[in-house]
Amino acid sequence: MSVYEKLKALDITLTAPAAPVAAYVMYVQTGNLVFISGHIAKNADGSINAGQLGKNITTEQGAAAARSVAVALIGTIQEAAGGDLNRVKRIVKLMGLVNSTPDYTDQHLVINGASALLGEVFGDAGKHARSAFGVAQVPLGACVEIDLIIELA
Amino acid sequence: MSVYEKLKALDITLTAPAAPVAAYVMYVQTGNLVFISGHIAKNADGSINAGQLGKNITTEQGAAAARSVAVALIGTIQEAAGGDLNRVKRIVKLMGLVNSTPDYTDQHLVINGASALLGEVFGDAGKHARSAFGVAQVPLGACVEIDLIIELA
Amino acid sequence: MSVYEKLKALDITLTAPAAPVAAYVMYVQTGNLVFISGHIAKNADGSINAGQLGKNITTEQGAAAARSVAVALIGTIQEAAGGDLNRVKRIVKLMGLVNSTPDYTDQHLVINGASALLGEVFGDAGKHARSAFGVAQVPLGACVEIDLIIELA
Repeated sequence: MSVYEKLKALDITLTAPAAPVAAYVMYVQTGNLVFISGHIAKNADGSINAGQLGKNITTEQGAAAARSVAVALIGTIQEAAGGDLNRVKRIVKLMGLVNSTPDYTDQHLVINGASALLGEVFGDAGKHARSAFGVAQVPLGACVEIDLIIELA
Repeated sequence: MSVYEKLKALDITLTAPAAPVAAYVMYVQTGNLVFISGHIAKNADGSINAGQLGKNITTEQGAAAARSVAVALIGTIQEAAGGDLNRVKRIVKLMGLVNSTPDYTDQHLVINGASALLGEVFGDAGKHARSAFGVAQVPLGACVEIDLIIELA
Repeated sequence: MSVYEKLKALDITLTAPAAPVAAYVMYVQTGNLVFISGHIAKNADGSINAGQLGKNITTEQGAAAARSVAVALIGTIQEAAGGDLNRVKRIVKLMGLVNSTPDYTDQHLVINGASALLGEVFGDAGKHARSAFGVAQVPLGACVEIDLIIELA
């Protein structure tokens, strides 16, 4: 299946990148690499998906939030790729930040929600290097923030 | 205005990079990309600008600290560019770390102090991808730490 | 001394990369750059070296943990380099995450354990840009997590 067939099979509709909440841009391309800004978790209505793992967000909820962030990232990738996701050669590196209490230690399971979706959608090209960890907070209190480095063909 | 005219108009004097506080170097170039080490916030006298957002540093103070870190980063960029800031093709990616209590959520406003200055000085070349988030602590207790990836022409 | 002579002089035996604890891969190469996933601190028996600086891990223990993570990273670099560490042109960037209480501020000394080893083993090619900071938690409670960007010849 092509990337677009996979998205359809997963019933995922891409959206245009949200406007940055501050003085930066959502992605920058240099050579074949695209550096994508941190995307924070949002609810279906566009509001911030706020909360902290270990406090008021479960691992399952966190993984679902990470998956939704990955959907938003794919929307940004599509724009960076000039509208054609088939130009994605590789998801290179993912940095996954989990809004965590000092004793929550399942950040890897939370960020798997994003990693798994990238694998489902992009296949081998979606297999990425990754760092996941717990942060003290995320802008606007979002429960998850993820950024990416990708390679375009 | 050129980069140097803008710096003059902003009354900014660049300084040479500080010596690293540990076993590393302040930047490494690979191809056209330069990876710049995390720079921590300092006061005008060179002492560490220590403190934590949500505890004893206000958002306004944090943004001013982030701006001063950006000034230091531009000094390092100048050295990395062999003394000529006109060789900067793009500020590619900024990672902004805000020393935060578990309930402070305006990291984006703090790091805007750095992002805005880079935009003012470098214009379109200063528009960067960004991830900003709250960390539990920063070396020496500094309130802000920022690193960069830039592209040289 | 060559890289392998240095490893022998330091009595370091490399190991194959551990399997990722989640849905990602241990490294991705793009062009001459290799992005290496976050490696977490482990004990000699392979169990997680868990704990938090400022709570139940001393700076010296943290630095030793960071050094052991660097040994694991060199094992992964060797695999990424097709078995030949002499292909390493430069350790470009290190991100060092220290599992920290809100008042522990010697993250730079902890991560020096990794930076120093990379310098010992790779000489000038081991001098890297670096960001080190304190995070709220690390997956599985590990006391240190480190990722790398390297350049191959």
